[in-house]
Amino acid sequence: MNITLEQAEKIIVAAKAKSIEINTKMNIAVVDSGANLVAFARMDGAWLGSLDISIKKAKTSRFFDMNTGVIGELSQPGGALYNIEHSNNGLITFPGGVPLKDANGNVIGAVGVSGSSVENDHTVAEAGANAI
Amino acid sequence: MNITLEQAEKIIVAAKAKSIEINTKMNIAVVDSGANLVAFARMDGAWLGSLDISIKKAKTSRFFDMNTGVIGELSQPGGALYNIEHSNNGLITFPGGVPLKDANGNVIGAVGVSGSSVENDHTVAEAGANAI
Amino acid sequence: MNITLEQAEKIIVAAKAKSIEINTKMNIAVVDSGANLVAFARMDGAWLGSLDISIKKAKTSRFFDMNTGVIGELSQPGGALYNIEHSNNGLITFPGGVPLKDANGNVIGAVGVSGSSVENDHTVAEAGANAI
Amino acid sequence: MNITLEQAEKIIVAAKAKSIEINTKMNIAVVDSGANLVAFARMDGAWLGSLDISIKKAKTSRFFDMNTGVIGELSQPGGALYNIEHSNNGLITFPGGVPLKDANGNVIGAVGVSGSSVENDHTVAEAGANAI
Repeated sequence: MNITLEQAEKIIVAAKAKSIEINTKMNIAVVDSGANLVAFARMDGAWLGSLDISIKKAKTSRFFDMNTGVIGELSQPGGALYNIEHSNNGLITFPGGVPLKDANGNVIGAVGVSGSSVENDHTVAEAGANAI
Repeated sequence: MNITLEQAEKIIVAAKAKSIEINTKMNIAVVDSGANLVAFARMDGAWLGSLDISIKKAKTSRFFDMNTGVIGELSQPGGALYNIEHSNNGLITFPGGVPLKDANGNVIGAVGVSGSSVENDHTVAEAGANAI
Repeated sequence: MNITLEQAEKIIVAAKAKSIEINTKMNIAVVDSGANLVAFARMDGAWLGSLDISIKKAKTSRFFDMNTGVIGELSQPGGALYNIEHSNNGLITFPGGVPLKDANGNVIGAVGVSGSSVENDHTVAEAGANAI
Repeated sequence: MNITLEQAEKIIVAAKAKSIEINTKMNIAVVDSGANLVAFARMDGAWLGSLDISIKKAKTSRFFDMNTGVIGELSQPGGALYNIEHSNNGLITFPGGVPLKDANGNVIGAVGVSGSSVENDHTVAEAGANAI
């Protein structure tokens, strides 16, 4: 019930390919079921600030076993989870983090992508997640 | 005027029972009157990100001797305590943290619960607090 | 151009007296011109979470040589200093922090108070500041 | 493709001159292409709290190769990058940070300025950036 490095590297390859296809430069992070980093790639010329954001997106997605953007809908002023970002050494709650599941639907990790619009980030994360 | 481990463990037992009753999986944290952790349980399959949130809810509740949700009403934009979450290494100000009192009404600690909707979190925290 | 411990202790005495007069229990912190703590008192029964807030209010006030509440008006969503609270290891930008000045108007430190409503916090901080 | 200390010092000189011209007292920070500090100056009497803000503005600008104020437009409640400030040990997303480019348009670092209104901060940062 945990991702292997081989799987994580497949995700990185697929995410890089999608990123190139849509003409972006991404930071791509894969964490395991314990929310610890397994593999990471920063494409040449990708934003330096997206390094930490991609890792935080992957962690946030595994922390709650959902897409990061779902949490962001609840963390707004007046929302049920307002300012949840202060937990866990800083969450990132906009799109770009996606859980990874095995054939039985168990969460085995998560992938986080940052470096373009949040729509593109999510597209690339999905492409990575679909590689396994 | 401080909670004992025996009391904290009773709270955990009661909170787990209520959590099962309402079909949730919770992180449950009990802190003493110094806001330091006494007992903790993460139910199998509960969100990993709720670990830190449950502890922060318990601490936040003891820090101000009130339910965490009360603080969240004041920390919104335009509110009297806007962005108070930046203090004390990160507060969690939505429901799920409840103070613990002795027979004389003195605060002896607090319980924090995270893992479901904030309504369910609060329900389980209350069940725990009522066990002593 | 820096506060002495003797002055800081006078501020604590005056702030405690005002706090008792208005029936509150306060945390009171005095920092010097370098924003470092000089004296501190937590009145019996005062909120534990206000310890850090009182110190952060004193620091924030010295950091910008103004009352903390002024900054909070600018740090709201849409404001010029939105999310400035993320700087300096966490600012507190609601009322209760007041700069301390010498006879020539030079800032020699600041006092921060937390433990009641922000109006009461500010009242007690002012009483402290007026003691020197 | 990285700023030299000589260039950074020219930026500091130009920013100080502009700051004096518009009657302000600034903290001025220059980071390299790795977002690490190269040169810094705090003008006598400038806000102490602006020290950290100027450095965070420079880092934030290099992290995303854009003016800091652009990010702040997207990090508001409801915005695409809501609460991005929680990443990278704290971003500052209001104006005053500007990327530095070489003759070919490559980003070689960034300058961050803090100590007055955000308009003045940006004006001084621009003056610094134009010195190389």
